[in-house]
Amino acid sequence: MPSLACSAEPETLRARRAALARTLDGRTAFFFAGAERPRNYPANTYPFRAGSHFLYFGGVGLAGAVLEVGPSASVLHRVPSTPEDALWHGPAPDDEALQAATGVDEIRDVAGLADAVAAARAPCTLPAVDLATRLRQARIFGLDWPEDRPVTVGDLDEGDRTLAQAVVEIRLRNDDDAVARIRAACRVTHAAHGAGVAAMAPGRREAAVRAAIESVMLAHGAEPAYGSIVSIAGEILHNTTYHRTLAHGDLLLVDAGAELDGWASDVTRTYPVGGRFLPEQRALYEVVLEAQRTAIEAVAPGVRFRDLHLAAARVLARGLVDEGILVGEVDGLVEAGAHALFFPHGLGHLLGMDVHDMEDLGDAAGYAPDRTRSDAFGLCYLRLDRDLEPGMVVTIEPGLYLVPAILEAEHLGRAFVERKMVDLDRLETFASVRGIRIEDDVLVTEEGADVLTASIPKAPEAVEAAVARRGFAPAG
Amino acid sequence: MPSLACSAEPETLRARRAALARTLDGRTAFFFAGAERPRNYPANTYPFRAGSHFLYFGGVGLAGAVLEVGPSASVLHRVPSTPEDALWHGPAPDDEALQAATGVDEIRDVAGLADAVAAARAPCTLPAVDLATRLRQARIFGLDWPEDRPVTVGDLDEGDRTLAQAVVEIRLRNDDDAVARIRAACRVTHAAHGAGVAAMAPGRREAAVRAAIESVMLAHGAEPAYGSIVSIAGEILHNTTYHRTLAHGDLLLVDAGAELDGWASDVTRTYPVGGRFLPEQRALYEVVLEAQRTAIEAVAPGVRFRDLHLAAARVLARGLVDEGILVGEVDGLVEAGAHALFFPHGLGHLLGMDVHDMEDLGDAAGYAPDRTRSDAFGLCYLRLDRDLEPGMVVTIEPGLYLVPAILEAEHLGRAFVERKMVDLDRLETFASVRGIRIEDDVLVTEEGADVLTASIPKAPEAVEAAVARRGFAPAG
Repeated sequence: MPSLACSAEPETLRARRAALARTLDGRTAFFFAGAERPRNYPANTYPFRAGSHFLYFGGVGLAGAVLEVGPSASVLHRVPSTPEDALWHGPAPDDEALQAATGVDEIRDVAGLADAVAAARAPCTLPAVDLATRLRQARIFGLDWPEDRPVTVGDLDEGDRTLAQAVVEIRLRNDDDAVARIRAACRVTHAAHGAGVAAMAPGRREAAVRAAIESVMLAHGAEPAYGSIVSIAGEILHNTTYHRTLAHGDLLLVDAGAELDGWASDVTRTYPVGGRFLPEQRALYEVVLEAQRTAIEAVAPGVRFRDLHLAAARVLARGLVDEGILVGEVDGLVEAGAHALFFPHGLGHLLGMDVHDMEDLGDAAGYAPDRTRSDAFGLCYLRLDRDLEPGMVVTIEPGLYLVPAILEAEHLGRAFVERKMVDLDRLETFASVRGIRIEDDVLVTEEGADVLTASIPKAPEAVEAAVARRGFAPAG
Repeated sequence: MPSLACSAEPETLRARRAALARTLDGRTAFFFAGAERPRNYPANTYPFRAGSHFLYFGGVGLAGAVLEVGPSASVLHRVPSTPEDALWHGPAPDDEALQAATGVDEIRDVAGLADAVAAARAPCTLPAVDLATRLRQARIFGLDWPEDRPVTVGDLDEGDRTLAQAVVEIRLRNDDDAVARIRAACRVTHAAHGAGVAAMAPGRREAAVRAAIESVMLAHGAEPAYGSIVSIAGEILHNTTYHRTLAHGDLLLVDAGAELDGWASDVTRTYPVGGRFLPEQRALYEVVLEAQRTAIEAVAPGVRFRDLHLAAARVLARGLVDEGILVGEVDGLVEAGAHALFFPHGLGHLLGMDVHDMEDLGDAAGYAPDRTRSDAFGLCYLRLDRDLEPGMVVTIEPGLYLVPAILEAEHLGRAFVERKMVDLDRLETFASVRGIRIEDDVLVTEEGADVLTASIPKAPEAVEAAVARRGFAPAG
């Protein structure tokens, strides 16, 4: 029998389904694992990843499967194994093994799904990640979902929206099983960053460092939770090219996190390639670190995440004023949005089975029901505006970047130069910085912040020592 | 300006488009690069891979782009870059850079595509790999393509089928540029297998060997052309799990090939984990090697690939008779299909931009127009039945496997035991074999076979030495 990789213990899965059923008011939820996504032709698929809602309540990543969570019982509708499957893919887990792993009450052939939906009282569902499955859902449930773009919460009918809200409420606060698995993913990420540090040296390519990092993930049976960013062009925020050659004086921004058994981690460190920060790099590095420390220290139940963002923004603005890059009084600069020229993204986001947890539901998870996104540059990219609660896992990731597209834009950089809030001449002396980000994964507890990735060095001396010694101590 | 990874020189691309235009009889072809495929939520996508037909004639992997190849001019319809793109993804290549890289006559905004199609004389297209793009194609071209399964050649109307045949005729015979790039991919694969050998040892997990192999691909700016198979359970033909622990006496089957700049390689070696084949493993290994040698030596223009398959099958059957596993006379055994119990798949397939080249067109590429697949077990999995021509690149990959699902099946293993063609008692002494496959990539030349992956050790002594010494010499 093949090993069955699971994202939770069966008791956990049962407890999650029971919690869901309690809030669903007699509705029956159907979660779709989704279909394999083709790479360059139908039979050559990307590594299969089941939808996170399915995985969260169902535990096993079975392509094509559907989990039914009813008021009193759960059914896993699976694609039956064919003799050809046995030849090409080996023996599939039998129903008994599946039932033991998932704790469901029954296993059925997914061929009967439409009948099960028709027989269910008040069936509801959430859009699967792949379009083929969404079209199938729309047919089975008689839904009028759009075909030319992802389905958003606004497209859902009332029953499905109720389900979305119920799922968000449960997944927002991670249970012990979830926290243990996020911790495990963070340990793999610790080792991966260590291998990246060992691989970085002037003359090597970004690709070599990325390879060392992802190799550790694969060796642990994990995989990248998102496209790793490993670049000396740290000012390109979602840079997933790796062709540049490292040189003395470069900062290498490494934003890489492992996903293990369906649970993500997400860590950024910024390393001086030659083992020493240049003075101007170190100055801004310490500003970012101070902003991160300020935000982490303020983490506590009841604290609004947007306030952490603004607190970090003030520290960054203060640091930029101290360095002569911004000119003026901190509160006024932050109010005007001058800090966002250099810190254009949000302080962080929810982390869980998705690296931006539940972002498939738009802002339904990240924003409290009575809050919406700001229109302001910078704040409009903030993915999280909730009051923190114990069990939430969030990233805290301030950064400073010199982005030509921002600094040269009429309505951004040039407008602030015009208002004499930015000193471009002074900024030139910081050209070697390009991009700095420091990111940790933080569990909110009753006491405050439990930094799950604290073991990965980030103090400037520790980072320099790690690069110079080509590695750092394993996770405790 | 970002570096623009290309899959061919602009002169090559122009020559390919000119060759296509000459066969299209005034038609205008539209090739779709396709859209990014989501992993667990819309914004977290798998690494983008453009469709191979688009890449073959267009050269650059631009998501959402469409290449128009008309009788006298080519147009690249691209998604224009937004200010947000510049922030998140850095500067995009400008039109001038794109035109230089692709050699097209014009670059346009893809927003005008429907008008371009409407204005074109006899527009035709091939189905993109992703469903979202296929739905878009169906709308623009007024096609009635199926939505619940991949589009096959049988679904195409006459104009599109003509285009499919024209593309197959061109892509079948690789030009010098293509061959040079396949060679480059093979060199990366050589290094990757070397790293895999260095990483294999009793007590380590399959995942560690896979990680070492794919790490080399990533470090070269390449990626796996398909899901690597790295397993001691070699009898599971498409096994992409990596959780098993290696032990003395195991054979580790490694089927891993790099894709570099859109061009694939595909190599299998079977390694004794402890550095020594057990006598029964070595006996069957030499049978597989002899089958491969026989097939490779017979490669020549005009030779029918199916005859190579059958020649290899006869060598395998002869070896199995010599070892006492099959009982009877070789030709009769092969005619009865007894060899296919142990060699259930085809001898090989086309290789190019796709590891099974042009398999998106079903058998239109693999099978000559007047040939169709056999119904016989084993032969039904043969992906290639054409007469070889110079410029074709094919894999030659015989194997022997002890697959419980086959040996225990009433109509397969048991039927042949009944007919006294298989000696199960004797077979038991070979239980440690599980699966052996030896696969190389072969360019057909006027003179015969040019084995592009010959530098990767495969003689049993060389394989043993490589494992014992934890590596082998770099590619020449």
